[in-house]
Amino acid sequence: MSPVPATTPIDATEEQLAQVSYNDDGLVPAIVQDHDSGQVLMMAWMNDETLRLTLAEGRTVFWSRSRKEVWRKGETSGDIQRLKAAYYDCDGDTLLLTVDQQGAGACHTGERTCFFRAFGSS
Amino acid sequence: MSPVPATTPIDATEEQLAQVSYNDDGLVPAIVQDHDSGQVLMMAWMNDETLRLTLAEGRTVFWSRSRKEVWRKGETSGDIQRLKAAYYDCDGDTLLLTVDQQGAGACHTGERTCFFRAFGSS
Repeated sequence: MSPVPATTPIDATEEQLAQVSYNDDGLVPAIVQDHDSGQVLMMAWMNDETLRLTLAEGRTVFWSRSRKEVWRKGETSGDIQRLKAAYYDCDGDTLLLTVDQQGAGACHTGERTCFFRAFGSS
Repeated sequence: MSPVPATTPIDATEEQLAQVSYNDDGLVPAIVQDHDSGQVLMMAWMNDETLRLTLAEGRTVFWSRSRKEVWRKGETSGDIQRLKAAYYDCDGDTLLLTVDQQGAGACHTGERTCFFRAFGSS
């Protein structure tokens, strides 16, 4: 049985958090990337509360736009995303999170990544 | 002098293009990833027209929300993004493009990636 890695909170400063700009709905897109493979796993949305929860708990926590509620990724499936690092972009309107994806993957379809369909015929 | 690689259009089907869902502004977020390094370079927005232009021209073309115009990435700087592959996610509301980034980088600040600032003190 392999040990379960502990989550590692990230101690962001208020100055850093103030750099994030939210859209009219109070949300910012968050790209989730596998820390080891570099594979882009998914994109979801955060508000100020769930960004702070993500950093404090060391796992991804999103805002579900459909259910209008806090969504702890993997709460039901167990396939949580342990946070390795978190970045904000040059104009502060997009986040990038690198994670250790637990379990089968990030996608509700059972695929490892939500981006499993390519344009084109090849 | 190294040869300039030719752009490679992607021949998407109408069925694939119909899987993309746009927000109320007619836009979809497009994540851009370096094909070789896996580094996430930037996120920008596309409408149906600029997604089709991207696939047809084999380079990234976005919709500038601030300028409200078609934005051929690198048109001024020359640092274009040559398209390698393009994906749409499970619910069709996010795109992922893998590219060969030409020149210095993707960010208007001169950084290679727009995600050059991390939360936390380390």
